[in-house]
Amino acid sequence: MKSILNVKEDILADNKRQAQGIRDELARNGVYMVNLMASPGSGKTSTILQVIDRLRDSVRFAVIEGDIDSHVDSNKVKNAGIPAVQIRTGGACHLDVPMVEPALGLLDLANLDCVFVENIGNLVCPAEFDIGADLDAMILSVPEGDDKVLKYPLMFTTCNLLIVNKTDYLALPSNNFSVERLRGHMQRLNPNAPIFEVSAYTGDGFDKLCDWLATRIRGKAEGVR
Amino acid sequence: MKSILNVKEDILADNKRQAQGIRDELARNGVYMVNLMASPGSGKTSTILQVIDRLRDSVRFAVIEGDIDSHVDSNKVKNAGIPAVQIRTGGACHLDVPMVEPALGLLDLANLDCVFVENIGNLVCPAEFDIGADLDAMILSVPEGDDKVLKYPLMFTTCNLLIVNKTDYLALPSNNFSVERLRGHMQRLNPNAPIFEVSAYTGDGFDKLCDWLATRIRGKAEGVR
Repeated sequence: MKSILNVKEDILADNKRQAQGIRDELARNGVYMVNLMASPGSGKTSTILQVIDRLRDSVRFAVIEGDIDSHVDSNKVKNAGIPAVQIRTGGACHLDVPMVEPALGLLDLANLDCVFVENIGNLVCPAEFDIGADLDAMILSVPEGDDKVLKYPLMFTTCNLLIVNKTDYLALPSNNFSVERLRGHMQRLNPNAPIFEVSAYTGDGFDKLCDWLATRIRGKAEGVR
Repeated sequence: MKSILNVKEDILADNKRQAQGIRDELARNGVYMVNLMASPGSGKTSTILQVIDRLRDSVRFAVIEGDIDSHVDSNKVKNAGIPAVQIRTGGACHLDVPMVEPALGLLDLANLDCVFVENIGNLVCPAEFDIGADLDAMILSVPEGDDKVLKYPLMFTTCNLLIVNKTDYLALPSNNFSVERLRGHMQRLNPNAPIFEVSAYTGDGFDKLCDWLATRIRGKAEGVR
């Protein structure tokens, strides 16, 4: 019998190979895919909705919602008038290619520019699985604390974009989150990942983040024309 | 080759069997063990420190800190003058018996009454692993949102105690967490788990929680005498 470690290596290698299939399909259609990872309750869905709200006049969005159970998030997205596909993992702690591929198959990729994939709320396991996205983005919310970089280093090392959400909490007397300290940690761990500070509650900071994202989404779409 | 599902079932069954060894060892010494699970940044360490601060005159504590990397939390506990053992999982997303057992071996169980095990910050994977604790407790913090019960049902179903932390955030204008809604969900999912509301920042609510815990810790110690 193979050891657990071998089994895990096999799974990750298989997944990496399969991710190329998704990448090819997205490239053919000029669709930019964002894999959004974070802890539970960090504001993934609210962040996606804030971005869509600002860019929907020029970008055609769809959202794939990963959840262990419930349709809470995909209903929020559908209520905003955006196509949404729900993946219910039934216990699994991350999304992988065999879950994302059929969900993508339900979307009309030829008529889309950007797909957000909201991963399972988990700062550990999703970081290990390539799902073929153009951007592996993560959110850290202020109430979680800036020391999470030290405690969950793989996620912070593998992401290509770090969004600091709930900046409206920075002004609270109970707050001890330092954006400067976070930037210092990231400078050592992952200096190329840009960091944007936003509040999905007030909307602060989203214009800058959306400019950055829109450039990348349009760049990919133009590659196809 | 065995399927992944078989491998996972084997691991969980092995772990369950091994957990009995920990239970026996704790019973011999009259030590009450708490497995504390939660998302990253929900306030596990601060909650442990608030409990210890209130009960340390009558209860002899030690803490086992699970972390993927870093010694941030065990240093906080040691600074409070409490014996602490750090488990660095090096990537693993949960604690299991083979990690907890040697950590317990480093503690002087004969001279302890209660061991807190701070699990990896993760609302998914730790819920599957019995580590031989008397109490599987979880924290949900207010900024995470009350809908987490619907999204991570296994954790909320298997816990024997739910602590709602950061209740000082309930008064914020951005708050949409309803303790009543949470209690409604729990009534359907896990009606026997008591729910305590605390703020590890202000200290509110800890007297009630500590009374409840102290009764159980003393009950176990008295079983040995």
